[in-house]
Amino acid sequence: MEKKAIILVGHGSSMPHNKEVISALAKKLKENSFWDEVSYSFMNMSSPSIKGAIEDVCADPMVTSIVMAPVFIAPGVHIKEDVPEILGLAPGEKTKEMEINGKIRTFYYSEPFGPDDRLVDIINDRALAAVEQCIEKG
Amino acid sequence: MEKKAIILVGHGSSMPHNKEVISALAKKLKENSFWDEVSYSFMNMSSPSIKGAIEDVCADPMVTSIVMAPVFIAPGVHIKEDVPEILGLAPGEKTKEMEINGKIRTFYYSEPFGPDDRLVDIINDRALAAVEQCIEKG
Repeated sequence: MEKKAIILVGHGSSMPHNKEVISALAKKLKENSFWDEVSYSFMNMSSPSIKGAIEDVCADPMVTSIVMAPVFIAPGVHIKEDVPEILGLAPGEKTKEMEINGKIRTFYYSEPFGPDDRLVDIINDRALAAVEQCIEKG
Repeated sequence: MEKKAIILVGHGSSMPHNKEVISALAKKLKENSFWDEVSYSFMNMSSPSIKGAIEDVCADPMVTSIVMAPVFIAPGVHIKEDVPEILGLAPGEKTKEMEINGKIRTFYYSEPFGPDDRLVDIINDRALAAVEQCIEKG
Protein backbone atom coordinates (compact mmCIF):
# COMPACT_ATOMS: atom_id res chain seq x y z
CA MET A 1 0.00 0.00 0.00
CA GLU A 2 1.35 3.40 -0.98
CA LYS A 3 1.74 5.94 1.81
CA LYS A 4 1.21 9.71 1.83
CA ALA A 5 3.57 11.76 4.00
CA ILE A 6 3.67 15.38 5.05
CA ILE A 7 6.80 17.09 6.37
CA LEU A 8 6.33 20.47 8.04
CA VAL A 9 9.09 22.96 7.26
CA GLY A 10 9.71 25.49 10.02
CA HIS A 11 12.10 28.42 10.05
CA GLY A 12 14.26 27.13 12.90
CA SER A 13 15.63 29.23 15.74
CA SER A 14 18.49 29.51 18.21
CA MET A 15 15.77 29.38 20.90
CA PRO A 16 13.70 26.21 21.59
CA HIS A 17 10.23 27.73 21.02
CA ASN A 18 10.04 27.41 17.23
CA LYS A 19 10.77 23.68 17.48
CA GLU A 20 8.24 23.31 20.30
CA VAL A 21 5.50 24.94 18.22
CA ILE A 22 6.31 23.09 14.96
CA SER A 23 6.53 19.70 16.69
CA ALA A 24 3.24 20.37 18.51
CA LEU A 25 1.57 21.26 15.19
CA ALA A 26 2.92 18.02 13.68
CA LYS A 27 1.55 16.02 16.63
CA LYS A 28 -1.90 17.54 16.12
CA LEU A 29 -1.73 16.95 12.37
CA LYS A 30 -1.08 13.23 13.05
CA GLU A 31 -4.63 13.04 14.38
CA ASN A 32 -5.79 13.76 10.81
CA SER A 33 -6.06 10.29 9.31
CA PHE A 34 -5.38 11.47 5.74
CA TRP A 35 -1.60 11.41 6.27
CA ASP A 36 0.12 8.07 6.80
CA GLU A 37 3.29 9.79 8.01
CA VAL A 38 3.71 13.22 9.63
CA SER A 39 7.15 14.64 10.27
CA TYR A 40 8.75 18.06 10.70
CA SER A 41 11.98 19.78 9.76
CA PHE A 42 13.72 23.14 9.88
CA MET A 43 15.29 25.37 7.27
CA ASN A 44 18.13 26.25 9.62
CA MET A 45 19.38 26.35 13.23
CA SER A 46 17.04 23.61 14.57
CA SER A 47 17.00 19.89 13.86
CA PRO A 48 16.05 17.76 12.03
CA SER A 49 17.10 19.50 8.82
CA ILE A 50 14.86 19.33 5.74
CA LYS A 51 17.16 16.75 4.11
CA GLY A 52 17.40 14.76 7.34
CA ALA A 53 13.60 14.55 7.67
CA ILE A 54 13.24 13.52 4.01
CA GLU A 55 15.81 10.73 4.45
CA ASP A 56 14.04 9.55 7.56
CA VAL A 57 10.58 9.51 5.97
CA CYS A 58 11.96 7.84 2.81
CA ALA A 59 13.47 5.00 4.83
CA ASP A 60 9.98 3.53 4.33
CA PRO A 61 9.78 2.33 0.71
CA MET A 62 5.98 2.57 0.79
CA VAL A 63 6.09 6.38 1.09
CA THR A 64 5.53 7.58 -2.49
CA SER A 65 3.93 11.04 -2.02
CA ILE A 66 5.48 13.67 0.24
CA VAL A 67 4.12 17.16 0.81
CA MET A 68 6.72 19.66 2.03
CA ALA A 69 4.52 22.10 4.00
CA PRO A 70 6.07 25.44 4.98
CA VAL A 71 4.95 26.71 8.39
CA PHE A 72 5.43 30.33 7.31
CA ILE A 73 3.04 33.26 7.23
CA ALA A 74 3.99 34.74 3.87
CA PRO A 75 6.20 33.92 0.90
CA GLY A 76 9.58 35.64 0.95
CA VAL A 77 13.22 34.82 0.34
CA HIS A 78 13.03 31.66 2.49
CA ILE A 79 9.95 30.31 0.68
CA LYS A 80 10.90 31.39 -2.84
CA GLU A 81 14.65 30.74 -2.78
CA ASP A 82 16.13 29.05 0.28
CA VAL A 83 13.73 26.11 0.74
CA PRO A 84 13.39 25.37 -3.03
CA GLU A 85 17.19 25.30 -3.27
CA ILE A 86 17.38 22.72 -0.47
CA LEU A 87 14.64 20.67 -2.18
CA GLY A 88 16.24 20.93 -5.62
CA LEU A 89 13.18 22.70 -7.06
CA ALA A 90 13.58 25.23 -9.87
CA PRO A 91 12.06 28.72 -9.27
CA GLY A 92 8.27 28.36 -9.23
CA GLU A 93 8.41 24.56 -9.45
CA LYS A 94 5.80 23.02 -7.12
CA THR A 95 6.24 19.29 -7.67
CA LYS A 96 9.09 16.96 -8.57
CA GLU A 97 9.79 13.26 -8.74
CA MET A 98 12.98 12.14 -7.04
CA GLU A 99 14.50 8.70 -6.64
CA ILE A 100 15.39 8.11 -3.00
CA ASN A 101 16.55 4.73 -1.68
CA GLY A 102 15.78 3.17 -5.05
CA LYS A 103 12.14 4.32 -5.12
CA ILE A 104 10.54 7.13 -7.11
CA ARG A 105 8.86 9.60 -4.74
CA THR A 106 6.66 12.53 -5.75
CA PHE A 107 7.28 15.73 -3.80
CA TYR A 108 4.77 18.58 -3.53
CA TYR A 109 5.70 22.02 -2.17
CA SER A 110 2.70 23.70 -0.57
CA GLU A 111 2.00 27.38 0.00
CA PRO A 112 2.54 29.38 3.21
CA PHE A 113 -0.51 30.57 5.18
CA GLY A 114 -1.29 33.88 3.43
CA PRO A 115 -4.03 36.25 4.71
CA ASP A 116 -6.31 33.49 5.99
CA ASP A 117 -9.37 34.46 8.07
CA ARG A 118 -8.30 31.93 10.69
CA LEU A 119 -5.12 33.96 11.30
CA VAL A 120 -7.29 37.03 11.88
CA ASP A 121 -9.19 35.08 14.54
CA ILE A 122 -5.98 33.94 16.24
CA ILE A 123 -4.53 37.49 16.25
CA ASN A 124 -7.77 38.80 17.73
CA ASP A 125 -7.81 36.10 20.43
CA ARG A 126 -4.17 36.79 21.42
CA ALA A 127 -4.81 40.55 21.54
CA LEU A 128 -7.88 40.24 23.77
CA ALA A 129 -6.04 37.78 26.04
CA ALA A 130 -3.13 40.22 26.41
CA VAL A 131 -5.44 42.99 27.58
CA GLU A 132 -7.43 40.70 29.91
CA GLN A 133 -4.32 39.18 31.51
CA CYS A 134 -2.75 42.56 32.18
CA ILE A 135 -5.99 43.88 33.71
CA GLU A 136 -6.28 40.77 35.94
CA LYS A 137 -2.66 41.17 37.12
CA GLY A 138 -2.93 44.94 37.57
CA MET B 1 -14.54 58.63 24.05
CA GLU B 2 -11.43 56.52 24.57
CA LYS B 3 -10.30 54.43 21.62
CA LYS B 4 -8.74 50.97 21.48
CA ALA B 5 -6.11 50.38 18.80
CA ILE B 6 -4.31 47.30 17.54
CA ILE B 7 -1.07 47.44 15.56
CA LEU B 8 0.02 44.25 13.83
CA VAL B 9 3.78 43.65 13.93
CA GLY B 10 5.09 41.68 10.96
CA HIS B 11 8.62 40.49 10.32
CA GLY B 12 9.19 42.56 7.19
CA SER B 13 10.90 41.35 4.03
CA SER B 14 12.94 42.50 1.05
CA MET B 15 10.11 41.02 -1.06
CA PRO B 16 6.59 42.56 -1.17
CA HIS B 17 4.64 39.47 -0.03
CA ASN B 18 5.04 39.84 3.73
CA LYS B 19 3.61 43.37 3.56
CA GLU B 20 0.79 42.18 1.29
CA VAL B 21 -0.22 39.47 3.77
CA ILE B 22 0.09 41.63 6.91
CA SER B 23 -1.86 44.53 5.37
CA ALA B 24 -4.57 42.11 4.16
CA LEU B 25 -4.84 40.66 7.68
CA ALA B 26 -5.16 44.20 9.09
CA LYS B 27 -7.90 44.99 6.57
CA LYS B 28 -9.85 41.90 7.63
CA LEU B 29 -9.33 42.72 11.32
CA LYS B 30 -10.89 46.15 10.73
CA GLU B 31 -14.17 44.37 10.10
CA ASN B 32 -14.08 43.34 13.78
CA SER B 33 -15.85 46.22 15.52
CA PHE B 34 -13.98 45.77 18.82
CA TRP B 35 -11.00 47.80 17.58
CA ASP B 36 -11.44 51.52 16.92
CA GLU B 37 -8.14 51.67 15.03
CA VAL B 38 -6.29 48.91 13.18
CA SER B 39 -2.82 49.48 11.82
CA TYR B 40 0.25 47.42 10.89
CA SER B 41 4.00 47.73 11.12
CA PHE B 42 7.21 45.80 10.48
CA MET B 43 10.18 44.89 12.62
CA ASN B 44 12.54 45.53 9.73
CA MET B 45 12.94 45.91 5.94
CA SER B 46 9.30 46.92 5.21
CA SER B 47 7.43 50.10 6.13
CA PRO B 48 5.87 51.49 8.23
CA SER B 49 8.26 50.74 11.06
CA ILE B 50 6.91 49.86 14.53
CA LYS B 51 7.75 53.35 15.83
CA GLY B 52 6.27 54.98 12.73
CA ALA B 53 2.97 53.13 13.14
CA ILE B 54 2.81 54.01 16.86
CA GLU B 55 3.38 57.71 16.09
CA ASP B 56 0.71 57.60 13.44
CA VAL B 57 -1.89 55.88 15.66
CA CYS B 58 -1.03 58.20 18.59
CA ALA B 59 -1.68 61.30 16.48
CA ASP B 60 -5.24 60.71 17.70
CA PRO B 61 -5.35 61.82 21.37
CA MET B 62 -8.38 59.59 22.00
CA VAL B 63 -6.33 56.41 21.47
CA THR B 64 -5.47 55.30 25.01
CA SER B 65 -5.05 51.51 24.67
CA ILE B 66 -2.80 49.98 22.02
CA VAL B 67 -2.17 46.26 21.52
CA MET B 68 1.05 45.46 19.69
CA ALA B 69 0.16 42.14 18.05
CA PRO B 70 3.02 40.07 16.61
CA VAL B 71 2.13 38.21 13.42
CA PHE B 72 4.64 35.49 14.17
CA ILE B 73 4.24 31.73 14.55
CA ALA B 74 6.45 31.17 17.58
CA PRO B 75 8.41 33.19 20.11
CA GLY B 76 12.10 33.53 19.31
CA VAL B 77 14.80 36.18 19.28
CA HIS B 78 12.57 38.65 17.39
CA ILE B 79 9.63 38.25 19.81
CA LYS B 80 11.66 38.03 23.03
CA GLU B 81 14.40 40.55 22.30
CA ASP B 82 14.15 42.61 19.10
CA VAL B 83 10.53 43.80 19.27
CA PRO B 84 10.56 44.45 23.08
CA GLU B 85 13.71 46.54 22.60
CA ILE B 86 11.97 48.67 19.96
CA LEU B 87 8.93 49.03 22.27
CA GLY B 88 11.05 49.84 25.32
CA LEU B 89 9.73 46.81 27.21
CA ALA B 90 11.94 45.03 29.76
CA PRO B 91 12.43 41.25 29.24
CA GLY B 92 9.11 39.54 29.96
CA GLU B 93 7.24 42.84 30.36
CA LYS B 94 3.82 42.63 28.66
CA THR B 95 2.31 46.05 29.32
CA LYS B 96 3.60 49.59 29.79
CA GLU B 97 2.25 53.09 30.02
CA MET B 98 3.96 55.63 27.81
CA GLU B 99 3.35 59.33 27.31
CA ILE B 100 3.07 60.10 23.61
CA ASN B 101 2.00 63.50 22.27
CA GLY B 102 1.16 64.61 25.81
CA LYS B 103 -1.22 61.71 26.51
CA ILE B 104 -0.67 58.57 28.62
CA ARG B 105 -1.23 55.48 26.49
CA THR B 106 -1.30 51.90 27.72
CA PHE B 107 0.54 49.40 25.52
CA TYR B 108 -0.06 45.65 25.58
CA TYR B 109 2.26 43.16 23.89
CA SER B 110 0.36 40.06 22.79
CA GLU B 111 1.63 36.54 22.16
CA PRO B 112 2.54 34.96 18.80
CA PHE B 113 0.27 32.23 17.37
CA GLY B 114 1.71 29.13 19.05
CA PRO B 115 0.46 25.60 18.20
CA ASP B 116 -3.12 26.65 17.53
CA ASP B 117 -5.53 24.09 16.02
CA ARG B 118 -6.48 26.66 13.38
CA LEU B 119 -2.89 26.59 12.06
CA VAL B 120 -3.16 22.81 11.74
CA ASP B 121 -6.28 23.31 9.61
CA ILE B 122 -4.54 25.87 7.39
CA ILE B 123 -1.47 23.64 6.90
CA ASN B 124 -3.73 20.73 6.00
CA ASP B 125 -5.71 22.84 3.52
CA ARG B 126 -2.54 24.13 1.82
CA ALA B 127 -1.09 20.61 1.62
CA LEU B 128 -4.22 19.12 0.03
CA ALA B 129 -4.43 22.06 -2.41
CA ALA B 130 -0.80 21.50 -3.47
CA VAL B 131 -1.46 17.87 -4.33
CA GLU B 132 -4.75 18.64 -6.11
CA GLN B 133 -3.30 21.48 -8.18
CA CYS B 134 -0.33 19.40 -9.32
CA ILE B 135 -2.60 16.48 -10.27
CA GLU B 136 -4.90 18.83 -12.24
CA LYS B 137 -1.95 20.32 -14.12
CA GLY B 138 -0.29 16.95 -14.72
